Amino acid sequence: MRSSVSSMAAGSGTEWLRSVKGVILDMCGVLYDSGEGGGQAIPGSVEAVRRLKDSGLTVRFCTNETQNTRERFVQKLCVMGFDLSVSHVFSPAPALIHTLRERQLRPHLLVHDDLIPEFDGVDMSSPNCVVIGDAADNFSYQNLNEAFRVLIGLENPLLFSLGQGRYYKETDGLKLDVGVFMKALEHLCCVQYACDVQAEVVGKPSADFFQTVLRDMKLQPHEVVMIGDDLLNDVGGAQRCGMKGLQVRTGKYRPSDERHPSVRADAYMDDLSAAVNAIMTHH
Amino acid sequence: MRSSVSSMAAGSGTEWLRSVKGVILDMCGVLYDSGEGGGQAIPGSVEAVRRLKDSGLTVRFCTNETQNTRERFVQKLCVMGFDLSVSHVFSPAPALIHTLRERQLRPHLLVHDDLIPEFDGVDMSSPNCVVIGDAADNFSYQNLNEAFRVLIGLENPLLFSLGQGRYYKETDGLKLDVGVFMKALEHLCCVQYACDVQAEVVGKPSADFFQTVLRDMKLQPHEVVMIGDDLLNDVGGAQRCGMKGLQVRTGKYRPSDERHPSVRADAYMDDLSAAVNAIMTHH
Repeated sequence: MRSSVSSMAAGSGTEWLRSVKGVILDMCGVLYDSGEGGGQAIPGSVEAVRRLKDSGLTVRFCTNETQNTRERFVQKLCVMGFDLSVSHVFSPAPALIHTLRERQLRPHLLVHDDLIPEFDGVDMSSPNCVVIGDAADNFSYQNLNEAFRVLIGLENPLLFSLGQGRYYKETDGLKLDVGVFMKALEHLCCVQYACDVQAEVVGKPSADFFQTVLRDMKLQPHEVVMIGDDLLNDVGGAQRCGMKGLQVRTGKYRPSDERHPSVRADAYMDDLSAAVNAIMTHH
Repeated sequence: MRSSVSSMAAGSGTEWLRSVKGVILDMCGVLYDSGEGGGQAIPGSVEAVRRLKDSGLTVRFCTNETQNTRERFVQKLCVMGFDLSVSHVFSPAPALIHTLRERQLRPHLLVHDDLIPEFDGVDMSSPNCVVIGDAADNFSYQNLNEAFRVLIGLENPLLFSLGQGRYYKETDGLKLDVGVFMKALEHLCCVQYACDVQAEVVGKPSADFFQTVLRDMKLQPHEVVMIGDDLLNDVGGAQRCGMKGLQVRTGKYRPSDERHPSVRADAYMDDLSAAVNAIMTHH
């Protein structure tokens, strides 16, 4: 088995893998590459997920996907061959809706059309907050202006962002993600209105979000490794919660990630299959 | 005449108006309010411009307008009743084109459709820089993605921004301006690629831009007052060049501008007509 973990041998030690009892898997860029027609599984990842589950480790899925309801998203992954149930998948919209209900907030939505059904039954009259997600083509000039106007018209401007990724990769190229528009709205409000709008991020890398997953796993942070392709949102976010963070060299990974000035993964692996090989070696 | 300058009496002294030999006028929000059908003149401004010119002061116009060629923009103002010639109007696109030619740059454009004719004869094959202007509806998700991809694909990412205003007011409400998208692209490239993209701003508040106008006026900075509705781009920019800056309470002016932590106008006036009254009182 040693050859399969050669990419780790060059980095830091791998002894910590022995204490891993649970794995949280990022989805896009780790399990599959998105794109036209829903995207396609990354080679070896369907089998890698099955091996992880068969090993008796506790496995959860954690995504910032907001272009679909959680149900439809899981269906899409099942069609690709993955075996996963909705209750093991954590995504921002259900977490946000819980918060909106708790705090009696009525959102103005700037999200993807296919996410709208998630908000069935949520009161959206006289909005008192703005919610942005990965709206893709809905990030039109007109919709951005409208979100801006609603936000600065509020006595207490409140902005929720479903994730804060800056870009992602689809089969037809890199695309801007919600974080770019979140920063733009924050910057605009702060500089011009001194109203100090700071978006509340729902989803990775929010500690609240990771802790919800940990509670569901019934594990301590040091017993869990997060596997993702996003150095800041997956690896950095998990590490700040006390988990280990492993970056795979698929999806949005770029070689410069391994020289990032402030975030360093506990391990870098070529893909999910290699990561699971390494974990299995220690179990 | 004292009553017409009452709004100054409460502020700092107005003695400096005696040394004014030239006036630079911002256009949108000072001369007219933009909006459907091209917008409309602000009451009293047509006459105020005529009085300024008749007084023998040197008058120039300085705009960050990039939704039209300079020629068509001047035509629009003439239809509203203003008397001005193209050669006295300074706008970003002609200044940028001068720079592109000097530095042998080929732009990828993300600008308003109506600005495109300004680039007739400019080589746009194999772009080696990105130019963004106030593209309005052209700030689509698709066009932003494309500009981002071109930018990060360059060996030496070079971004020009025609102005850096953050929002402006049209008759149907506040609208996001080019500065928001400039910041978004800068932020995205810097954080993710550590490639330190800092846009070169062409137009106000760039010192180069103001100095071109001053050279044309054949006046020293301390002899000139800039009149604008934008505290940072008009007033602050002019003051950094050694000019006086007067803010009018029309256009995008907001009362909080008068409590801005770092920029303070040399005078605040209700509108251009009041500003010209004050200048005339001292001549």
